[in-house]
Amino acid sequence: MILAIDGMGGDHAPQSTVKGALEAIKELGVTVLITGDREVLSKELMQYEYEKDKIEIIHCTEKIENDDAPVKAVRRKKDSSMVVALNLVKEGRAEAVISAGNTGALLAGGLFILGRIKGIDRPALAPVFPHQQGASVLIDGGANTECKAAHLLQFGIMGSLYAKHILGIENPKISLANVGEEKGKGNELTKAAYELLEESSLNFTGNIEARDLPRGKTDVIVCDGFTGNIILKLTEGVFMTVFDLLKEKFTKSFLTKIAAGILKPELRKIKKDYDYTEHGGAPFLGVQGVLIKAHGSSDGKAIKNALRQGKGFADEKIVEKIEAALIN
Amino acid sequence: MILAIDGMGGDHAPQSTVKGALEAIKELGVTVLITGDREVLSKELMQYEYEKDKIEIIHCTEKIENDDAPVKAVRRKKDSSMVVALNLVKEGRAEAVISAGNTGALLAGGLFILGRIKGIDRPALAPVFPHQQGASVLIDGGANTECKAAHLLQFGIMGSLYAKHILGIENPKISLANVGEEKGKGNELTKAAYELLEESSLNFTGNIEARDLPRGKTDVIVCDGFTGNIILKLTEGVFMTVFDLLKEKFTKSFLTKIAAGILKPELRKIKKDYDYTEHGGAPFLGVQGVLIKAHGSSDGKAIKNALRQGKGFADEKIVEKIEAALIN
Repeated sequence: MILAIDGMGGDHAPQSTVKGALEAIKELGVTVLITGDREVLSKELMQYEYEKDKIEIIHCTEKIENDDAPVKAVRRKKDSSMVVALNLVKEGRAEAVISAGNTGALLAGGLFILGRIKGIDRPALAPVFPHQQGASVLIDGGANTECKAAHLLQFGIMGSLYAKHILGIENPKISLANVGEEKGKGNELTKAAYELLEESSLNFTGNIEARDLPRGKTDVIVCDGFTGNIILKLTEGVFMTVFDLLKEKFTKSFLTKIAAGILKPELRKIKKDYDYTEHGGAPFLGVQGVLIKAHGSSDGKAIKNALRQGKGFADEKIVEKIEAALIN
Repeated sequence: MILAIDGMGGDHAPQSTVKGALEAIKELGVTVLITGDREVLSKELMQYEYEKDKIEIIHCTEKIENDDAPVKAVRRKKDSSMVVALNLVKEGRAEAVISAGNTGALLAGGLFILGRIKGIDRPALAPVFPHQQGASVLIDGGANTECKAAHLLQFGIMGSLYAKHILGIENPKISLANVGEEKGKGNELTKAAYELLEESSLNFTGNIEARDLPRGKTDVIVCDGFTGNIILKLTEGVFMTVFDLLKEKFTKSFLTKIAAGILKPELRKIKKDYDYTEHGGAPFLGVQGVLIKAHGSSDGKAIKNALRQGKGFADEKIVEKIEAALIN
């Protein structure tokens, strides 16, 4: 399988992208096309020993920066590492594309270059949301701040296929993030979406309150992208704050320091389990091709995991499965 | 000062309401009108020694249950402890009313019986949101799931007066809960609300991302009631989950149990600081009168704190201040 990676995208590129690509080649047996400045990438590659025919540099001269205006950047920087990488999937030269670059630009680029799957009005980001029993799929994680009920139904369909075929959950539970459990609760959007989800063939289990999200009561959390962003970022913020507080309290005295030292490995484990950045990237579902958004702060290992994820979505032919689900 | 309390409202009423009322009388020097069945309340009162002329039972025969449909309950149960308590403020017999009963019914009752302040389209719940440095006011905490930009501006005005006059913050920072910090981020509602808040005379500090809410970067968090509910409930859920996980990990071995025992008081303190139910009730701002929603699970102490809060809002004449702010 051939995967494409935006070689210049991410806070630690190209070190992270080159390292991640080479690790993926070794571990997954894939071939990688890496986009970016040939000189820069070659220099980075020289530090490693690797199978030369398993990685190819696709030279390009531009780079989309994090503060570039997304749509403008994608339209104007045609020879950027991100746009060129997206085109590799569009042209059928690669089966999936991974980028840790500017999120807005990547979503805009995904829409413009790959296009939407027929029947999907709004492609959506689907990160995992770690919880007490494992992880749920959260969709939309922030691509669409303004949604209609029909979009939420489509998110449910895509999230269900993700949970089933990638996470291996047989009959995934689909829930609507809402302000109360009973039918009839919520705003106009969630009330209308409830009706559509209930009528669908999905395993819709009704509304889920925000309080229950970290409990892991569902497999797929459906919400608009505004709410999804609030859920992801707030969870992250509360976790960080609790751990800061624990650190502060636990270093109060000699005795608490010793006690904290004993518990440190356990604390670290909790922190890691709940760090959604540990769970690889987020697929941008609903576009005509496999597109994985890796975190901006990805290191080599995170890039390798995102490539593994891209391979998984391509192996499972998720794009075709979404298409088929919408026809039926 | 005379305060009214819905004597039958709440999971632990009338034990909690009677106990709370008597403690408030002792500590705050107020007089309390308590609504409910005379026989039930008298029997409860008999357990205590108290100044007889400081508490008066306002007899009524009905009670709004937690599963009653809010609007219907308020309209039909005219002789319920909640409706009668609201009428005490409406008629000028009490300066504030407290209830731990059915939230939806209380908000509906507040609107119908007390009415709105001129210039306020949507009264809003304003609970405190505990954070690393203290607490912010969050408005709307869940009264209005569907909002317009003008409503969010009104929330900002009311929240600012709350923070200034009740929490004693000189020039409170007002922020808009949003998916990005920059102007122009968000959904249609937050984009439009940003413009209005920016043009207002409030100390508007721009958007705040959910990640930063637990850090305490602002004094007043403005959002629609759907988002506010998600923020409050998710924060609660993540906290509960982290503490469950800590408990689980800390009881793994003899050694971790000993270490955890040493840290237990510190853990308990963090948990308490962040439990928003510890911070008294939430005022329903924008109605013509002081109305405090106490938590359904309130015990006597929580009821006393809600009465103290009601007294504070009445002392500071918040209703009049909101009226004046809207005229200017």
